[in-house]
Amino acid sequence: MRTVEWDYTNHKLRLIDQHALPGEFSYLSFGDYREVARAIRNMVVRGAPAIGVTAAFGMALAARQSRARDTASFLQDMNRAAEELRNARPTAVNLSWAVERMLGVISRQPATPESLRAALLDAAQQLADEDVRTNQEMALFGASLIESGDTVIHHCNTGSLAAVEWGTALGVIRMAHQQGKAIHVLVDETRPRLQGSRLTAWELEQYGIDYAIITDNAAGYFLQSRQVHKVLFGADRVAANGDVVNKIGTYMLALAAHANHVPVYPVVPLSTIDLGTQNGEDIPIEQRSPDEVLDLMVNGMPVAPADARARNPAFDITPHRLVSAIVTEAGIIYPPFKRNIRRAIEHNLK
Amino acid sequence: MRTVEWDYTNHKLRLIDQHALPGEFSYLSFGDYREVARAIRNMVVRGAPAIGVTAAFGMALAARQSRARDTASFLQDMNRAAEELRNARPTAVNLSWAVERMLGVISRQPATPESLRAALLDAAQQLADEDVRTNQEMALFGASLIESGDTVIHHCNTGSLAAVEWGTALGVIRMAHQQGKAIHVLVDETRPRLQGSRLTAWELEQYGIDYAIITDNAAGYFLQSRQVHKVLFGADRVAANGDVVNKIGTYMLALAAHANHVPVYPVVPLSTIDLGTQNGEDIPIEQRSPDEVLDLMVNGMPVAPADARARNPAFDITPHRLVSAIVTEAGIIYPPFKRNIRRAIEHNLK
Repeated sequence: MRTVEWDYTNHKLRLIDQHALPGEFSYLSFGDYREVARAIRNMVVRGAPAIGVTAAFGMALAARQSRARDTASFLQDMNRAAEELRNARPTAVNLSWAVERMLGVISRQPATPESLRAALLDAAQQLADEDVRTNQEMALFGASLIESGDTVIHHCNTGSLAAVEWGTALGVIRMAHQQGKAIHVLVDETRPRLQGSRLTAWELEQYGIDYAIITDNAAGYFLQSRQVHKVLFGADRVAANGDVVNKIGTYMLALAAHANHVPVYPVVPLSTIDLGTQNGEDIPIEQRSPDEVLDLMVNGMPVAPADARARNPAFDITPHRLVSAIVTEAGIIYPPFKRNIRRAIEHNLK
Repeated sequence: MRTVEWDYTNHKLRLIDQHALPGEFSYLSFGDYREVARAIRNMVVRGAPAIGVTAAFGMALAARQSRARDTASFLQDMNRAAEELRNARPTAVNLSWAVERMLGVISRQPATPESLRAALLDAAQQLADEDVRTNQEMALFGASLIESGDTVIHHCNTGSLAAVEWGTALGVIRMAHQQGKAIHVLVDETRPRLQGSRLTAWELEQYGIDYAIITDNAAGYFLQSRQVHKVLFGADRVAANGDVVNKIGTYMLALAAHANHVPVYPVVPLSTIDLGTQNGEDIPIEQRSPDEVLDLMVNGMPVAPADARARNPAFDITPHRLVSAIVTEAGIIYPPFKRNIRRAIEHNLK
């Protein structure tokens, strides 16, 4: 089962509908790249690696949709699609990274639109396969940090639903479990979109891994009462100095772990590291609709006054001083991050 | 409007039904102290000061209910009621403090059950009136810390719904507003029971105070982006060394405030300070039902798998090193807390 996959029979992109989980498991099909951009914006698909690959297939769709017969107008169409897909969500760097890679395919092959259409689909498929491979490499490195008997706190969803098939931080947990290590996961629910209770708990049930859901604000209690051995999460962007921008709540979780001497491990593919941003404060933080905070029912009753106002930043910045090590497909990167991140990326490019 | 009040016509205790808010404002009447204990347990009424006063009226009800004609069996009945009310919730010290005070009334007046019934109701009424007075004194001290233009983060509900009529931390905010200071409140929703979005937002609307609801895990973002000037909350119990046990999430909020040099002010009546517990780790932390975490609907859909497990600690410990000052009716207590708390209490007893 892949979260994001190309349907070669119908020439469409298929995505697991994450709005329907955990109640229902179903796929949605997309034949229009604009619908793909909307699905990214509305979080039908989410997670930095998954939206990167989705956008790549979105570019392949845009290539199919283009009526252009000459390369110049084809390029114009593709740039328009790139712009729209890139703007769907501003924070995760994988999105613009994947779109850039697709534009690179075009610029490397000055050819007919027809041959470019095929090349773009191949490139998107390659990106998807690469994501699975990269995730498994990360998972192996990360699993080496897990000891049997560990309790870990996990934030948001970073499993197969956040990637193509395997995942980042949850991939590490899954790998450790497959290696026979006993592991208990405290799944924080991750308000406002509840990716923890909705998606991560659902995935852990599929894998048969022991877990309990906690409210985000309860992590401190479990850390201060010495019930937690590690904290794991993914990231939407990592700056050159090791600052981590990830789902709202990561910063407070990392602070609480740090204050209680519990190691904090972001698990990210190198494509999530953006050497172009020096530190976390340079990364744009997406502000999402207040409705995500307010649209909640308990016992059939609304939980806020009818005209309530809300603010809803989607990400925060975890300063590198709170990060113990960064798990990547090129190995585990320890501080000092600025130097060691650069080295890992340079080494990986060789 | 009082959250907790005696109905002298019908000889019953009236409580605002906090389960029905913010959708509906209504009162519930109680003629049986066992029902009062259940209402405390189920959080029809909550907030340390409010449950203290409620338990005191519960004792007055138990006195009315007792069929005892002699003082000895009356005492037996009252001790049974005291036990049941005290056990309704274990963490807030105001509850056992109020019950003790009621038992003290009996021991001071060796008299007929009939005269004790009247004395107990008087004592409960006195406690309620005292709570309002104490809250207003605290509010005045606390408001002196607020500057016009301040944005404050407030955790849980500490307003009139958490006390008899005025409140602790929210009382400070209300007083500052009445003094003409411009104040903006970031109301954290306070999972799992959502006292912030359900109750605090509702109260702030009644008072005309500007606010926005945020998820608990977003507090760090607003603190790190320098949008917050103060953090305010109440407490369920304060230890002799200044450690604060309060609603789950307080610890992570205080950590994030401290890391960003934003002052942290618990607002508590002296009755919440328990010199009998040396530090926060000695205070029992109530574990509540997992259903409180899991019983949530978004767009008509459950947010967790059907068999999901959850853990639900109701409180955490904020170590005194994270506390800037404690606001009480006897003044603002600054560090070193151990010495200054003792002094404040001794001075207040004189």
